[in-house]
Formats: sequence, structure tokens, C-alpha cells
Amino acid sequence: MLPAPWFAVRVAIERVAVLGLGLIGGSLLLRSASNSASVVGYDADPRTRAAVAERLGNAAIAPDPATAVHDADLVVLAVPLPAVAAVSGALREVGYRGLLTDVTSVKEPVRALVAGAVPDARWVGGHPMAGKEASGFDAADAGLLTGCAWALCLDEETSLPDWLDVARWVLSLGGQVAPLTSAEHDAAVARISHLPHLVAAALATGAAAEPIGAAALGLGAGSFRDATRVAATRAALTAAMCGGNAVALTAELDGLIDRLTAARELLTRADPIDALTGWLDNARAIRAQWPPQGEKADIPLTRDDLLAAGRAGGRLTAIHADTATALIPRPS
Amino acid sequence: MLPAPWFAVRVAIERVAVLGLGLIGGSLLLRSASNSASVVGYDADPRTRAAVAERLGNAAIAPDPATAVHDADLVVLAVPLPAVAAVSGALREVGYRGLLTDVTSVKEPVRALVAGAVPDARWVGGHPMAGKEASGFDAADAGLLTGCAWALCLDEETSLPDWLDVARWVLSLGGQVAPLTSAEHDAAVARISHLPHLVAAALATGAAAEPIGAAALGLGAGSFRDATRVAATRAALTAAMCGGNAVALTAELDGLIDRLTAARELLTRADPIDALTGWLDNARAIRAQWPPQGEKADIPLTRDDLLAAGRAGGRLTAIHADTATALIPRPS
Repeated sequence: MLPAPWFAVRVAIERVAVLGLGLIGGSLLLRSASNSASVVGYDADPRTRAAVAERLGNAAIAPDPATAVHDADLVVLAVPLPAVAAVSGALREVGYRGLLTDVTSVKEPVRALVAGAVPDARWVGGHPMAGKEASGFDAADAGLLTGCAWALCLDEETSLPDWLDVARWVLSLGGQVAPLTSAEHDAAVARISHLPHLVAAALATGAAAEPIGAAALGLGAGSFRDATRVAATRAALTAAMCGGNAVALTAELDGLIDRLTAARELLTRADPIDALTGWLDNARAIRAQWPPQGEKADIPLTRDDLLAAGRAGGRLTAIHADTATALIPRPS
Repeated sequence: MLPAPWFAVRVAIERVAVLGLGLIGGSLLLRSASNSASVVGYDADPRTRAAVAERLGNAAIAPDPATAVHDADLVVLAVPLPAVAAVSGALREVGYRGLLTDVTSVKEPVRALVAGAVPDARWVGGHPMAGKEASGFDAADAGLLTGCAWALCLDEETSLPDWLDVARWVLSLGGQVAPLTSAEHDAAVARISHLPHLVAAALATGAAAEPIGAAALGLGAGSFRDATRVAATRAALTAAMCGGNAVALTAELDGLIDRLTAARELLTRADPIDALTGWLDNARAIRAQWPPQGEKADIPLTRDDLLAAGRAGGRLTAIHADTATALIPRPS
């Protein structure tokens, strides 16, 4: 007898365990529950566990990680980077060997930690690009993940069938899947998330500096409000994502300092207004085309085709038997 | 006979002319018209004049600057910095000697231009801290200025009675008056407006850079959206305000580059997460207290008391015969 094709024998993800119920883990739990999926959560904080029980009933919360992951088809690590080692250790203790994903904002360190602590688990790293400056289960929202880009790591060692299973689960939650390697993800988010967080903090700190700090803060309006919004994020969370991606972020920071130094030179020209106009207009053209408008395309379910779509800024919106539907930005 | 006190003989501002009907001038015109104030506008663009006539009637628009300012108690220069010299020249030609204000985002260059071109006009420099990335009369909005901080320059040569007249007019439009010198204004806005505009442009340009540009733009979410929002502003407008304030902005840019260089050093520490936490928490505390919550205070109508209120980040919300009501932030 020939072996059945994999898609005929694989069982869909039916039971999910979410470990860590902060903003992202809590939102995942709420969204899964609203899907009527079988989902159970665990959080180290007893007040969070009580809040979940009150909101979703006792069956939605487990008293410990071992109970939460018992019989799970997929375990979601939804803790900040500094807690990933401890939670991975708990998975090792119970001998977890199933599908494992995470929602951490940096992927290479998680890849290394998981490979060391639970090498038998089938890890597919993930990162939903959703967030807000508030944190904790109180800020969780079943709609937070709807329509978000959700990076899903397709590394050398990742099993493509496992990746597709996790990708289908992401789609079931309303996410749009961006296929990238862990290293590509880390370089991209250093640029469009971690760097803006550092810059927001530097702008907020600078605004308050003497002299003229109080007057400057008093005149702050829309551009200051938006440029510094994420500086209000809990420092430990921003520190974990920036510090956990230090190498990629340092390279992006160097690029930004170079660009600001170039702008400074334009400001010292005889006609700084004229000198700045072209430099600013280049940025305007880029920002005016963002977010990119994707065009529908059918992508074969091969590793190379999926990664090519992700590298072009594409997102999968549906996965069929042999192809995925993707939105691919037009090259500018 | 003793001279009458100034407040008994001064005539309130009854007829206003607005020269330049883009986002701010147009919003001023719409707001004044909704106040049933006598206001007339002029714009060099015939399509804008036609749009105003269609919206507010023919009486709201003048065919040329001379007609607009005829009989005006207050002329508002609402053109970008590069056009201030030409419009000031038009005022000189008609021998304008009345109250003059402006809404330009930088004050020292306007102060110098106006002093040279129309020395007999009684200039009180102004800058409403309101805006959006769209520009032009189509984007104007009668509500844009409501509640905004409106810097009003109280320089050595400014007549205090003139300043108070213009301040009362600002209050009548829903603005809150921040008393500052032109130099203080320029230093403050370099920090909280012009610098965020340059940074937004640098972040947008950097995001698109190869390699990984398309993937990075595809993953961009809330922090990228807000950090780069004002990069979509028309380049000529941003160039005029940044280039027109080049000295103050260069100093702020140096401060930002120093702060980013300090953050870079923290990223290279053995434990970058720990190293970044304190630095980020300082910024978080500043941003969490912004916008400042003011406490009501009565301010005597003297130059020194008004400027002290402005330097503390205060805003006047009402002007009475001998005092002003101000909202003054608590020192942090």
C-alpha cells in the first residue's frame, strides 16, 4: 500500500493551550473562545487566572502548565522573551512533543532556546504584528489580531506540513501569514518596530530636557503625540524586544544615525529649505504608498515559493490543498 | 485731563483679513465665519478662491490682497514661510499699519522679514499647534483649532496691549494662548514638531532600504504607522518649517543623535535587556505624564508674569481686565 499524502492523514489542530495571558496571549484566548475552539490558558499570575475564569468560565483556565498542555495539539508560548526559558523548561518536564508556536517579538533567540530545552517539540515560530501601548489581560481584545500580518518562521529545520498546520490555525484567528525565516523576521522587525520604539523613547526624553522642556511639552501636538506614543509602553516589554534583538537593532540604529547625520548636513546648506525638499519627498513617496496594496496571487505550497512571497511583503490569506492565496504588493 | 486707561479706548478686533487659505488659513476662515465674525480671505490660487466663494459666499473672498486688508483691524499671514516676504511686500505697498499676526511654524525669520518689509505694522507672531498630514483648503476644518495650544510671541518690541488684543482674538477662535518669545517658540517647536518630522522621514526611508525592505514594509504595524505618519506631509511644507528653523533644529538633532548613540551603547552590553530598562523607563514616565494636566491659576497681565506662565508650559484660557486665567502644569 502506498503511503497516504500527508494532507489526508494529518489531524487538524483541535485543542490549543496558551501559556501566558497578557495582551497577545489573552487576545488569542478570547478570539479562540469566540471561535468555539477548544482552548485553555495558563498564566503565572493568580489574578489573571481569576480574571479569565470570570470572563470565560473555569474550563478556559488551567491551574498549572502541565494541565494546560495535556492533550494539546498546539501549545502557544505567549510570554515575553525573558520568560521563554522557564516555560520551555516546564514543557520539557512534561515531555511535550507536539506542535509549538510562540508570539514573541524576536525569533532567533526563541529558536535557540526552544531547540535546547524542548528539541522534540515541533516549533514553528510566530509573531503577530499587533499590539498597543497597554499591556496585560485587562487590555486583551478578541479583535486585536483581526487582519494583522502574522510572521510565521519557515527555517531550514521547520517541517513544511507543521508550518502549514500552524498557518491554517493563524488564518482561523483572522491573521494573515507572512512566511519568513527567523533571521529575516528579526531584521525586518528591528527596522519597523524595535527602532521606532527606541526613537520614541529618545524623543520623549529629549523633549523634557532643560532648557525649554516644560514649554516644549506644553506645545506638543499631533506630530509629538504620534512620534512618542509607544514610549508609554511598559519598559520591561520594550527592553525585552529591543535587547533580545540587539544585533539587528544596532545595525538599524546605525542606519538611522547615518540618515539623521545626512539631514543635519542638509540643514547647514546655504538654502536648507531647497536642500531638504528632495530628501523629504523621497520619504513622502515611500510613506504615501504604505501600507502596501497587495494583489491576489496563487502561490504553490513549496518552501521557496512561500518564502519568496514573504520576502516580497506578501501575506497568505487562505491555504488550499496545493496552493495558497496571497496578497503580494506591487513593486514600487 | 488724564489719559484714559488703554482698555477703555481700544477698539476690539472687528474685521479680520486672512491671507493664504491652506489648511490653517482656511480653518481660521471657516471658524471665524461660524463665529459670525467679519472675515475676508485671499489666496493666490484662483481655484481656492472659487472654493471659498462656493462654500462661504462671495463676500468671504477678496480678489487681491489690497482689497482683503482694506479696513481690517487684524491681518493674518497664513502662508508658508517662503511666501511671507512676498505677502509682506504687498502689505507695505498698501501702507498697512494695523495689527498683524501670522501662523507660520517658525517665528524669528518672520519677525525679521516683517520688521524689514512692514515696520509700521504692529506684528504679534503666532503659531497654532494644530495640523494634519493633509494640506490645502480642501483639508480645512472649522474645528481644527479648537483647544489647541497657540503660541503667541511676546518679544521685547511687542506692545503688550497689542499682544492682549490678538490673544483675545485667539481665545475667541477656541485656541489656548501660550506666551513665549520668538526664540523660545523656535527652540520648543524644533524639539516637538520639526525633529519628529525629520525622524519620521528618516524612518520611512530606512524602512524601504534593501535588503529586506519589502518584507519590513509588509510587517509594519502600529508603531511604524504612527512613527512615520507625518512623513506623508507635502515635502515643501516640511522643508520650509525645518529649513526655516535650521539652527534650533540642528541643536535638537545633535541631542537626538547623542541619545540614540547612548542607546546603541546599552545594546552592546552583556545584558542589553537589563541595560535598556532604566533608560526606557525614564522615557515612559515622561510620556505617561503627557499631555500635561494643567491647574487653574490667575496670572497678572504683565509681560514677566505672562512669559513665566508660558515657560512653565501654561496656556491662557481667558483674559479679564487685570488678569488671565491659565492652565499651568504641575512641575513633575
